[in-house]
Amino acid sequence: MSVAAQTVKKFLNDPADVVPESLAGLGAAHPDLVRIDLENQIVLRKDAPVSGKVALVSGGGSGHEPLHGGFVGLGMLDAACPGAVFTSPVPDQMLAATKAVDGGAGAVHIVKNYTGDVMNFRLAAELAEDEGIQVESVLTNDDVAVEDSLYTAGRRGTGVTVLVEKIAGAKAEAGGSLAEVTAVARKVNAQGRSFGVALNSCATPAAGSPTFDIGPDEMEFGVGIHGEPGRRREKIRPVAQIVEEMADAIIGDLSPRSGANLLAFVNGLGGTPLIELYLVYNELAKQLERHSLRATRSLVGNYITSLEMAGVSITLLALDDELTGLWDAPVHTPALRWGV
Amino acid sequence: MSVAAQTVKKFLNDPADVVPESLAGLGAAHPDLVRIDLENQIVLRKDAPVSGKVALVSGGGSGHEPLHGGFVGLGMLDAACPGAVFTSPVPDQMLAATKAVDGGAGAVHIVKNYTGDVMNFRLAAELAEDEGIQVESVLTNDDVAVEDSLYTAGRRGTGVTVLVEKIAGAKAEAGGSLAEVTAVARKVNAQGRSFGVALNSCATPAAGSPTFDIGPDEMEFGVGIHGEPGRRREKIRPVAQIVEEMADAIIGDLSPRSGANLLAFVNGLGGTPLIELYLVYNELAKQLERHSLRATRSLVGNYITSLEMAGVSITLLALDDELTGLWDAPVHTPALRWGV
Repeated sequence: MSVAAQTVKKFLNDPADVVPESLAGLGAAHPDLVRIDLENQIVLRKDAPVSGKVALVSGGGSGHEPLHGGFVGLGMLDAACPGAVFTSPVPDQMLAATKAVDGGAGAVHIVKNYTGDVMNFRLAAELAEDEGIQVESVLTNDDVAVEDSLYTAGRRGTGVTVLVEKIAGAKAEAGGSLAEVTAVARKVNAQGRSFGVALNSCATPAAGSPTFDIGPDEMEFGVGIHGEPGRRREKIRPVAQIVEEMADAIIGDLSPRSGANLLAFVNGLGGTPLIELYLVYNELAKQLERHSLRATRSLVGNYITSLEMAGVSITLLALDDELTGLWDAPVHTPALRWGV
Repeated sequence: MSVAAQTVKKFLNDPADVVPESLAGLGAAHPDLVRIDLENQIVLRKDAPVSGKVALVSGGGSGHEPLHGGFVGLGMLDAACPGAVFTSPVPDQMLAATKAVDGGAGAVHIVKNYTGDVMNFRLAAELAEDEGIQVESVLTNDDVAVEDSLYTAGRRGTGVTVLVEKIAGAKAEAGGSLAEVTAVARKVNAQGRSFGVALNSCATPAAGSPTFDIGPDEMEFGVGIHGEPGRRREKIRPVAQIVEEMADAIIGDLSPRSGANLLAFVNGLGGTPLIELYLVYNELAKQLERHSLRATRSLVGNYITSLEMAGVSITLLALDDELTGLWDAPVHTPALRWGV
């Protein structure tokens, strides 16, 4: 009997209401940070629009929480547009968000490279421009596991999206122009690479059963954040070997100079306990040393998830003084907070 | 075939090395906050001992991360003693931790009410007193689900432990005396209540298979953080009904005055995605309104876990100005950070 035949149990009322009910909970828990426009299904920074500030808008299918709604607030996003689970939000939603947070200095759309998101954000940007709001779009495509995939032409956008939102958000908060915020967002994407591995599947609330089949001793090496196939299906190996191959794939593609300073981001996909994420970090630290690299900043936890998938992704970002300073700048959102 | 027959897959090397390897990862990821004494298996605040400050020491079996090692740092714990997974740490370990962080103002041991922890911390306190360190012990026993349980006489210590560590840590950081820090820690425990529900079991790394059997349509209502039985095993119900009964059990026991200000803490047990935790929060907010109570502070996420168990616990803490102020005070640990 395969694991996929199991029912995945969830805390739910009607599965059709998961997204609006969860958004209502986000708003109820953090009334000082965000407000929820349930009609348009968007999460807005409490004090939006911030006059004169470049507005940051992101979005994508739900099921990756805290991305993106958990990153709305001071020093990060002005608005997030959640779609249904694993389904792109729609242009009208993105347009409503962009208009609601426009402070007169233009908007940056941060778009993970999935075909539906790209298409819908492109249309939303055109609609916003028609209404007089200048929009720049920044695509994240940091996943080195595969070229082209289910839902994606080119590389998939994954962990680096969190870092783009934090760092570009800090630049906007500091008064950066539309061109400056866009440039630093693109720089983060260009200097970041990711790779993910899954030990089991997640299940969408609507389906209630696992998205893909996987054997009890198998892992998906190079998985996408919706369970898309990676490089190969293989037997589980010791974490030291898994992380060595993940680090080699990332570092080989990123080609940082020897001695480079990195932000090392170990991200849980939702169902992997923190004790294991730190085990992964321990192996990653050894690999960085082997490659003569230094992690001068770190982030460990569940930040871009795939519902309850057991799995982990690693993102490395090559830092310089500008990016380090923007990373360290104050942030106050439901899921990421410091300096305030 | 029962769910329990499934292998639970994990990122591991040798299962016997999970705790030290994970601690090494914690130290590697947060060298600015903690240092790891691998020989004694303790997590120490980087700048410990802090001269003249009351030292806070906690500990317990591993598998509940970020509790307790992730709460070591400014404004919270001075040391954490992790045992093997779901196994109490030993008195020598607790003694070594207490001595390492003693700043001359005495130490508070924060002890969850499990028989092994209570016994070992009692012995450690005696040994520390023999060496001239004044120790006060604070027991947490906030779980209203059951009286007496596997591993516990009386009520189990659970979610309130996180709040005790934060609030008492702030009191110590602000220069509180041993008596003052102890008093506020006991006040938090006295004013807090918790209740947990599990949808499935976790699996320890050593066993590799689920700790308890549970049917594909069942939940454990009132579960403990090691999977101990709760009030009853029953069919899964809509989350609105589950949260209503949890809230009634907590509020009925706590008996806050009408209009009271609460800290509402929705805690994931490890395998439940954040989208569901906010769904739980949404239902909790409705229940608080029904009882004429107000959540003036909130915490939502995985803070006291049971490895990858799918489940949630709710903790409510009756706040006053003192507790609110201490909750808001700066904290800088691997898992909880604000104001700095």
